[in-house]
Amino acid sequence: MALLLKIGGWEQIKRETWDYIVSPANWTVWLTIAIKVLVIYAAGRTVTAITRRAVAHMVREREKSPLKFDPRRTNTIGRLIGNVITYTVNFFVIILILSQFGFNLAPILAGAGVLGLAIGFGAQSLVKDVITGFFIIFEDQFAVGDVIQTGANKGTVEEIGIRVTRLRSASGEIHIIPNGLITQVTNFSTHNSLAILDVTVAYDTDLEKAMEITKDTAKEVYHHSDLIVKEPVILGVQAVTNTDVTMRITAECRPNAQPEVIRLLNMELMRSLEQHGLKKIG
Amino acid sequence: MALLLKIGGWEQIKRETWDYIVSPANWTVWLTIAIKVLVIYAAGRTVTAITRRAVAHMVREREKSPLKFDPRRTNTIGRLIGNVITYTVNFFVIILILSQFGFNLAPILAGAGVLGLAIGFGAQSLVKDVITGFFIIFEDQFAVGDVIQTGANKGTVEEIGIRVTRLRSASGEIHIIPNGLITQVTNFSTHNSLAILDVTVAYDTDLEKAMEITKDTAKEVYHHSDLIVKEPVILGVQAVTNTDVTMRITAECRPNAQPEVIRLLNMELMRSLEQHGLKKIG
Amino acid sequence: MALLLKIGGWEQIKRETWDYIVSPANWTVWLTIAIKVLVIYAAGRTVTAITRRAVAHMVREREKSPLKFDPRRTNTIGRLIGNVITYTVNFFVIILILSQFGFNLAPILAGAGVLGLAIGFGAQSLVKDVITGFFIIFEDQFAVGDVIQTGANKGTVEEIGIRVTRLRSASGEIHIIPNGLITQVTNFSTHNSLAILDVTVAYDTDLEKAMEITKDTAKEVYHHSDLIVKEPVILGVQAVTNTDVTMRITAECRPNAQPEVIRLLNMELMRSLEQHGLKKIG
Amino acid sequence: MALLLKIGGWEQIKRETWDYIVSPANWTVWLTIAIKVLVIYAAGRTVTAITRRAVAHMVREREKSPLKFDPRRTNTIGRLIGNVITYTVNFFVIILILSQFGFNLAPILAGAGVLGLAIGFGAQSLVKDVITGFFIIFEDQFAVGDVIQTGANKGTVEEIGIRVTRLRSASGEIHIIPNGLITQVTNFSTHNSLAILDVTVAYDTDLEKAMEITKDTAKEVYHHSDLIVKEPVILGVQAVTNTDVTMRITAECRPNAQPEVIRLLNMELMRSLEQHGLKKIG
Amino acid sequence: MALLLKIGGWEQIKRETWDYIVSPANWTVWLTIAIKVLVIYAAGRTVTAITRRAVAHMVREREKSPLKFDPRRTNTIGRLIGNVITYTVNFFVIILILSQFGFNLAPILAGAGVLGLAIGFGAQSLVKDVITGFFIIFEDQFAVGDVIQTGANKGTVEEIGIRVTRLRSASGEIHIIPNGLITQVTNFSTHNSLAILDVTVAYDTDLEKAMEITKDTAKEVYHHSDLIVKEPVILGVQAVTNTDVTMRITAECRPNAQPEVIRLLNMELMRSLEQHGLKKIG
Amino acid sequence: MALLLKIGGWEQIKRETWDYIVSPANWTVWLTIAIKVLVIYAAGRTVTAITRRAVAHMVREREKSPLKFDPRRTNTIGRLIGNVITYTVNFFVIILILSQFGFNLAPILAGAGVLGLAIGFGAQSLVKDVITGFFIIFEDQFAVGDVIQTGANKGTVEEIGIRVTRLRSASGEIHIIPNGLITQVTNFSTHNSLAILDVTVAYDTDLEKAMEITKDTAKEVYHHSDLIVKEPVILGVQAVTNTDVTMRITAECRPNAQPEVIRLLNMELMRSLEQHGLKKIG
Amino acid sequence: MALLLKIGGWEQIKRETWDYIVSPANWTVWLTIAIKVLVIYAAGRTVTAITRRAVAHMVREREKSPLKFDPRRTNTIGRLIGNVITYTVNFFVIILILSQFGFNLAPILAGAGVLGLAIGFGAQSLVKDVITGFFIIFEDQFAVGDVIQTGANKGTVEEIGIRVTRLRSASGEIHIIPNGLITQVTNFSTHNSLAILDVTVAYDTDLEKAMEITKDTAKEVYHHSDLIVKEPVILGVQAVTNTDVTMRITAECRPNAQPEVIRLLNMELMRSLEQHGLKKIG
Repeated sequence: MALLLKIGGWEQIKRETWDYIVSPANWTVWLTIAIKVLVIYAAGRTVTAITRRAVAHMVREREKSPLKFDPRRTNTIGRLIGNVITYTVNFFVIILILSQFGFNLAPILAGAGVLGLAIGFGAQSLVKDVITGFFIIFEDQFAVGDVIQTGANKGTVEEIGIRVTRLRSASGEIHIIPNGLITQVTNFSTHNSLAILDVTVAYDTDLEKAMEITKDTAKEVYHHSDLIVKEPVILGVQAVTNTDVTMRITAECRPNAQPEVIRLLNMELMRSLEQHGLKKIG
Repeated sequence: MALLLKIGGWEQIKRETWDYIVSPANWTVWLTIAIKVLVIYAAGRTVTAITRRAVAHMVREREKSPLKFDPRRTNTIGRLIGNVITYTVNFFVIILILSQFGFNLAPILAGAGVLGLAIGFGAQSLVKDVITGFFIIFEDQFAVGDVIQTGANKGTVEEIGIRVTRLRSASGEIHIIPNGLITQVTNFSTHNSLAILDVTVAYDTDLEKAMEITKDTAKEVYHHSDLIVKEPVILGVQAVTNTDVTMRITAECRPNAQPEVIRLLNMELMRSLEQHGLKKIG
Repeated sequence: MALLLKIGGWEQIKRETWDYIVSPANWTVWLTIAIKVLVIYAAGRTVTAITRRAVAHMVREREKSPLKFDPRRTNTIGRLIGNVITYTVNFFVIILILSQFGFNLAPILAGAGVLGLAIGFGAQSLVKDVITGFFIIFEDQFAVGDVIQTGANKGTVEEIGIRVTRLRSASGEIHIIPNGLITQVTNFSTHNSLAILDVTVAYDTDLEKAMEITKDTAKEVYHHSDLIVKEPVILGVQAVTNTDVTMRITAECRPNAQPEVIRLLNMELMRSLEQHGLKKIG
Repeated sequence: MALLLKIGGWEQIKRETWDYIVSPANWTVWLTIAIKVLVIYAAGRTVTAITRRAVAHMVREREKSPLKFDPRRTNTIGRLIGNVITYTVNFFVIILILSQFGFNLAPILAGAGVLGLAIGFGAQSLVKDVITGFFIIFEDQFAVGDVIQTGANKGTVEEIGIRVTRLRSASGEIHIIPNGLITQVTNFSTHNSLAILDVTVAYDTDLEKAMEITKDTAKEVYHHSDLIVKEPVILGVQAVTNTDVTMRITAECRPNAQPEVIRLLNMELMRSLEQHGLKKIG
Repeated sequence: MALLLKIGGWEQIKRETWDYIVSPANWTVWLTIAIKVLVIYAAGRTVTAITRRAVAHMVREREKSPLKFDPRRTNTIGRLIGNVITYTVNFFVIILILSQFGFNLAPILAGAGVLGLAIGFGAQSLVKDVITGFFIIFEDQFAVGDVIQTGANKGTVEEIGIRVTRLRSASGEIHIIPNGLITQVTNFSTHNSLAILDVTVAYDTDLEKAMEITKDTAKEVYHHSDLIVKEPVILGVQAVTNTDVTMRITAECRPNAQPEVIRLLNMELMRSLEQHGLKKIG
Repeated sequence: MALLLKIGGWEQIKRETWDYIVSPANWTVWLTIAIKVLVIYAAGRTVTAITRRAVAHMVREREKSPLKFDPRRTNTIGRLIGNVITYTVNFFVIILILSQFGFNLAPILAGAGVLGLAIGFGAQSLVKDVITGFFIIFEDQFAVGDVIQTGANKGTVEEIGIRVTRLRSASGEIHIIPNGLITQVTNFSTHNSLAILDVTVAYDTDLEKAMEITKDTAKEVYHHSDLIVKEPVILGVQAVTNTDVTMRITAECRPNAQPEVIRLLNMELMRSLEQHGLKKIG
Repeated sequence: MALLLKIGGWEQIKRETWDYIVSPANWTVWLTIAIKVLVIYAAGRTVTAITRRAVAHMVREREKSPLKFDPRRTNTIGRLIGNVITYTVNFFVIILILSQFGFNLAPILAGAGVLGLAIGFGAQSLVKDVITGFFIIFEDQFAVGDVIQTGANKGTVEEIGIRVTRLRSASGEIHIIPNGLITQVTNFSTHNSLAILDVTVAYDTDLEKAMEITKDTAKEVYHHSDLIVKEPVILGVQAVTNTDVTMRITAECRPNAQPEVIRLLNMELMRSLEQHGLKKIG
């Protein structure tokens, strides 16, 4: 280096470098770069501000909506999304600014791309959860308070969240199900249910009489209970075996009231058949 | 900077920069850019306008169609699609305009690409739902009111939607099934059904006589019921065991009328066999 | 701008711009562009015309083919494919023409690519359906009227479509199965079937005699029924238990005639064994 | 345009354009293009010719091979492959020639790439079928006439095709299985089978004597039947219950002859045990 | 080489090379490179320092959190993540610096990309584990000490880790479950449970009396046990058979106390029914 | 053309073209191309030669290895791999040489890439088979002659091949399993087995005495049979029912000898218990 | 060529080529290339040396670790990894060096990329095995000697390898399980187990007395056996049927000692109940 300075002359190098820097052609280049950097920076700030405001708006919307959301959770998720956006935008702003100065940043982009894909693959089910959650609310598939079944889990909907839905089963457990796994849903709360009861009597019972009594009893139960919404129907002989005959009765009742209705009919039919000397054996 | 100005001369830099800007060669470049920006902007507006109109058209079409769509849902989905298209087109218009000014926007594109792929993977089943939904209607697989079974869910079709189909089961629940999961469908409502009834009598019964009575009774039932569309057929001895013999009868009946027809035949056969001193034991 | 015009001189700019436009070097460039645009446009029109004609040809072919296709469906699908091709080709023609004018259209292409991949992933099973459908017909796997089973669905083939195959089950339902799901097919209609019947007699029965009677009866049935195509074979003692002995008979019969043949043999064997004082107990 | 001609002078433009075209520098460029186009065209023709001949060769080979192929099917598939290759090669030849003239064809290539990937994904199982089919033949996994089981399908191999294998089940159905699904194969026809027979006698039977008789009978059956290839072995007491004792016999026999051998032994053992006052009860 | 030196003159080459190196134009180029290298190096150090500090911060946070983490494990994972980041950043810094010197490093990047993707695919479930683990804590799905069930594994949560969750089953085994597999969770500890008890009595029992006794006994148990939180309810006749009648009682109790409550009621009901001359037979 | 020749003068064009070709600048360009082509060609030949030799070496190795490989198969696979490598290398050599002459071959590469990916996807399981096969041998998972179970297939290993492994089941069938499907393997041949025998006696048997006799008998059997490697252990009372008591004995024996050992113990215990007036009833 | 030499003059070409080669501008270019090649070569050697040393280090570490690794296997795997790294690095060094000489090597890279992806897909489960194996050791999921269950395989851990884990089942088989398939693990050896025993007595047994005796006996067993670590608890009446009553006892015992403890309690309870005139019937 010292040798180099001695031979080439430091003075000359300094002077020529200076001339290079202050030449007008370079100035215009640098002006362009400066303008581009400013534009990029301003755009980055604008995008961050807009998305943060949009997220805040959505969070407020959610809090106002009649669906029961846990405000704390919505709030935290709002801040989480905001941070992720800010960091990502800043990363791209830095990359873009550096690239204007002529840095070859392809490797960093490639690295970020591979990382992004890797996270993207891992986060695939996360994205699916959010999209499906959106459609569950959007399509009125079920609401908080409905009794639904999805897969093997049945229960009352306690909360429809951004990522998971919580069901409370009849025996008190909480099923936490990612929205993305809620593909086929059965909603038990939107329409009346149909209670189906099989009444079995011995083979040698007088079937006409048994049917008559069954019909009258079912009618009476219908008039006394507000769970049953239509007069029960006796469909006929469902099955015959060596020892008994089975009749089937159906009764349209309020959503999810089948077990109560069946228990009610069970008891009343047993009583009334017994009163007429017949025996309900199933 | 001050130093720079002092040495290089601010006046000179200003003058030369000015010359650079107003030189004709640069003017033509800038004219080209201006024209390109205008073309891009116009194209963007045209695409947005056309797609919005197409979506509005499709929404109106759907509302007119005989299939029962919930107008509110169709409307909201229409607006949703419109917004997504507008935002996407605007994003590309901005990117294209900036790229005409010489911004190196590869990083943003790469970022958008990774994001697009990530969302694309998550939304894969959404796309599949819409495509399959389209083919369900297009191929007349089933219509509102048909009784169908797909997977483990059987019921009457209540609504064929853009993304999900709703079935109402016999006992009143609503099954909500994404169209993409409706792969194998069984439609019970387009053709007549075949009721199959096994009549079991004791081993030592006179089989000829039992078959005769069964045949006559089935014929009589056929003449009195409009559910059965062809005279029932006695296929013969289906099975023999140590204690009993089973005959099989089939009766072509109206779609989904099998349970009623079987109950009807059950009752009538029990009665008529009893009248002839035989006993139906299954 | 006004300032600029005052300083730089509008007249000079106009003149030099003009010179730039009419210089021969630029003329040759523009001529090249014009020729390329024309070639691209012509190529686009040619591709559209050829593919449309090819589709129309295929539709006509299908209508003439002996397989039962619903002409309305084939027609609509023909038009659908035609439109998709036209729109795609036009999109590429516009892109190519614009790219000749020096527009940087990479972003649009990237966007279209991501969109194409997203739709491609969603439409994957659609492509698979069509390819498999092609091979089903191409390889004579089954024809309309055959009884086939695929997965859990068994029935008579009603229609082999472009995307789905329709089976009519024995009890009257229509199974609609996407061709892509028809992987393993069992065709019951191309070869004779083998009816297998197990005849059980009590342990202390004279086995030699029982076999003799069984053989004679089976032979007789074979001579009277045209469903059985070869004389039935008595394979021997299939199983022995504490209380009974089981013999196995097989009878090659017409495709899908097993149930009838078994019922026939069942009845006749019961009768003939009884005539000889033996008892068929299974 | 007219204005342009008036101002710039059409004559001058024409002359300079002409000069441009006939200048030697451009001539050499065009010569190069012409040579490249010829080379590309010739290469395309060569590739098409070679692959078509290779396919034809393979088709002839297949027809000569001892495996039973349906010549009609092989022929059609040969022509199908030939067409696909020709169209693909021509497409690339046109693209390459156009690209020599300076057309920017990246969009078309991207489009073809997306299309290719879409079809590729859909055709994935097709490729897998062909590759697996190749290895089935190549590795002698089974041959036409062998009894094999793959998945739930068991039967005699009727045909090993390019894409599917056809099995004929014992009861006459044809199972058509894509080669790609034939992963685990069980071949029943290459080695001798082992017939396993459990002989149950009452608990209070003289076991020594029963074993002696069983051994003698099995030996005798072995000497009279050519299905059994090695003298049967009495393994000993397999199980003991409250009421009975079970002995196990094994007999190596010809492939797939187990049922016949077991039926034979069943009958003979029942007879010989009875002759010695013992009773085979299972 | 020697020849070359003789002819061309080593002196001249040396001199001209020297001139080339010390010419000011090259100096500015090299100055730019030097600055870029410094910027890249500084950026690399900054990124490493920041991420290392962030990881250390998170580790400390975890250690302070009330959830029981094994400090040793958290620590090791912290160091592991730190190393991975340092190595990756250094790799990119080296690549970027080399690329500033004009090395064509595309092959290395491509290689690293393929390697990254390969590892990315293999590590997919790892990423998913971490993301799901984050959401489990974030969404309060369950806490250490809760009794949960996921898939077939039920137990008390012992530790929620970065990658796996440990459950201790009732019989003492530790189930170690990757967080990514914890999709559907059932939490038994957040709400009261419902104990369901079926009481079966003989068919000819006086049902009114039995219900009265059952009710009184259940009430008494409720008053003496603090496991039951609401008075038990007698729902009615659940089922009737030929020989017995079954009544159902439900009792809301503390989370996971059902078995104890049922055993308690079982015993007390047996006793009190016996005291009244009735017999609990199920 | 003729016009062109007349105007421009063919002579002049010829001359200038000639000058262009023989100018030294072009000569050096062509020399470079020639050298590169030679290098590429030589490299291609070298790669082909080396890989072919490596394959041949591996084939010879395999033939010498103690594992039973079918030499014919190994040979054919060797040649197959050799051909695939040669064709691929030649394809790349041609592409590289053409690209040195300035052909734009991106389309062909893209086409080959798509094709490669398509085949790659289809051949995925093939690659997996080979890799897993390599690790099976490499990790000594099992050897020819071992009894192993993988999935539902159990048998003696007959051959570990490049792509498939062949098992011979106890009843003589050959299971052919792709190596890639051999994930979980159970090897029965490397360690001693444990025979487990449950001895059931009537509830009122003198348990002490029964255990004593059992112990003595088991000891005696152990001394007489070389299949049992350790003295059998009487674990105690395994289960109690209303009518009987079950004791459990375990005996460490040679690999896969459990059935024989159990049969042996079964017989001897029955005998010795009977001698002491006790009865083994299970 | 001869013609060319005659016309253009070989002498002149030779001279000018020479001038071209020895001109200083080219010298500096070649010097740069030479330096780059040296840097690349040195870097390649360094990477190879470092990774080889790192692998050797890891192998030594493994050999010293208390976990039982088979040294031979670890050694071979070390050498295997070393070779793969050397070949890969050399490939990239050659590619990089060639690319410095201006070879267009994109095709080779594309080919290597497709090959890499193909192998990467096939080797996906291999990578997953190694990563999961690392976490098994890293997270102390289980150690050699523990009894674990994963999937359907239960046994004592014999060896945790780089790719597979070996379990020895209770009956002596070795289960070889790829680490990637070890997702949910149940470890039976880290905590005490809970032995659960149901004691059934006849319905009319004096329950109080039976419980008293059971309690005393269990206590006594606890005092005499060191397998039970806490005094057994009598939970109460578990179930009641028509004929019997079942009590449940639990006893915390050493890991995996449940079967022994249950057998012990079984025997002792039978004896003590009998001594008090009661009968244990299940």
